Amino acid sequence: MSDDPALAERRRAIEAALERVLRPETEWPEALNRAMRYSVFAGGKRLRPLLALAACEAVGGAAQDALTFACSLELVHTFSLIHDDLPCMDDDDLRRGRPTVHKAFDDATAVLVGDGLQSLAFAHLLAGGDPRAAALAALLADGAWRMVQGQAIDLAAEGRVLSEAEVLELMAAKTGALITAAVVGGAIAATGSPRGLDRVGARLGLAFQIADDLLDVTGDTAALGKRAGKDVAKGKATLPALLGVAEARRRAESACAEAIEALAPLGERAEPLRALARFVVTRTR
Amino acid sequence: MSDDPALAERRRAIEAALERVLRPETEWPEALNRAMRYSVFAGGKRLRPLLALAACEAVGGAAQDALTFACSLELVHTFSLIHDDLPCMDDDDLRRGRPTVHKAFDDATAVLVGDGLQSLAFAHLLAGGDPRAAALAALLADGAWRMVQGQAIDLAAEGRVLSEAEVLELMAAKTGALITAAVVGGAIAATGSPRGLDRVGARLGLAFQIADDLLDVTGDTAALGKRAGKDVAKGKATLPALLGVAEARRRAESACAEAIEALAPLGERAEPLRALARFVVTRTR
Repeated sequence: MSDDPALAERRRAIEAALERVLRPETEWPEALNRAMRYSVFAGGKRLRPLLALAACEAVGGAAQDALTFACSLELVHTFSLIHDDLPCMDDDDLRRGRPTVHKAFDDATAVLVGDGLQSLAFAHLLAGGDPRAAALAALLADGAWRMVQGQAIDLAAEGRVLSEAEVLELMAAKTGALITAAVVGGAIAATGSPRGLDRVGARLGLAFQIADDLLDVTGDTAALGKRAGKDVAKGKATLPALLGVAEARRRAESACAEAIEALAPLGERAEPLRALARFVVTRTR
Repeated sequence: MSDDPALAERRRAIEAALERVLRPETEWPEALNRAMRYSVFAGGKRLRPLLALAACEAVGGAAQDALTFACSLELVHTFSLIHDDLPCMDDDDLRRGRPTVHKAFDDATAVLVGDGLQSLAFAHLLAGGDPRAAALAALLADGAWRMVQGQAIDLAAEGRVLSEAEVLELMAAKTGALITAAVVGGAIAATGSPRGLDRVGARLGLAFQIADDLLDVTGDTAALGKRAGKDVAKGKATLPALLGVAEARRRAESACAEAIEALAPLGERAEPLRALARFVVTRTR
């Protein structure tokens, strides 16, 4: 993905925009601002903001139109990673190849940074008075709320055998909702309407989560930048665990193909979104 | 306050509205829904929602106009209490006379419930498509973000001597911002404009926080429903600690009097807001 110059340019725009959203480390309270920057500028893939920009372009908008929303998405996503990594949650030491926030700082800072990133995401999105901001913030709030519900289901399900339908529901909540919000929000930022991208988002969310679960089984910690093999160790309910690696991979590829197929009517403009869809299932981290 | 029939009626409206916002305990994931209800229905004073309703009426609106916003305020306030009580933060066992959420459930649930209450607050406020929702959500997001910054300053300041100006800034962020948001949001829900209530909110926020810090010194755990004396034990930066109890009380009363004075032009309609302002400094819990 990093070899594509168009994507690299969009990623630079996202980094620059995030740079403007976060407060400087020299500002009071320094510890909070430092930890927020540590968590946001940790070399993340920026997949959700890239999806929002690409979806915006796919329906005829300029990538710039979705940039504020894209930043808010990344803040919410980062908040969820920080809280999921806490000792009382998934207890992870490594994220994006660096110590997790509670390891680099402390648990209190990690809780506050997560809380602050969620608040700031909404404050940033709603600050400009953009007439589409209310619809985008509603989408973001629903995505965040579904994500929290998904994490609650995930914790409750540890060591329990879920049915395939339950695993799919878990995935749709935990990951699918925010990825769907990214794609649908991109279209809303461009046109004020989802433009039928709901289905594309849902399929990509599913493909992304299966790919993530497959990487936990087949990837290695150094390449992933986070601990591999932890889902199996914890007895997490995943599709690879339920259906096996080969069938799970087939499902991810099929969900990705359906997303790309649904983009056919949008023609050439949807090419960046198609490239991201392919990346979702071929990525190695 | 509970003797006033008009306030009791408004409090019932708030309870009924919150009842409709939260999911039933029988719904999946049950543990999350049960803990959310436990935290929200714990006999809180509902001061912030009551302020929003009273401010709405003070500028000529119907209390009902601010009810959705009032619920979202209470969800954000409850989220902040749950996270502040966590072992890694203020480590409190008792809140509103009952075990705190992490004691009654566990730390992971307390983190998730807080996160979910914040997301739900925005989702609820933005769901109806009310044309004023974007302005109200922006206000709520700013209040929540300032509150998080205040808590970060508070943690960083433990055991350090702050100047009076720094203590006032801490209080304005940690408590003042959300109380100001309550009052200003009530006016916006009614008329689309703050109608000069910014100053009333800021004075009430200050009066509230000083009264809260005084209760920590002079109140007792049973009446407060939370542990008394903990600020002194932790060396927290408060006005009673800095200026003494008598001078702090004088400041609270003076801030309250200024708030009431600023309401003079609004006449009879502002009576419920005046009653709440008096309650802020005379309350015993």
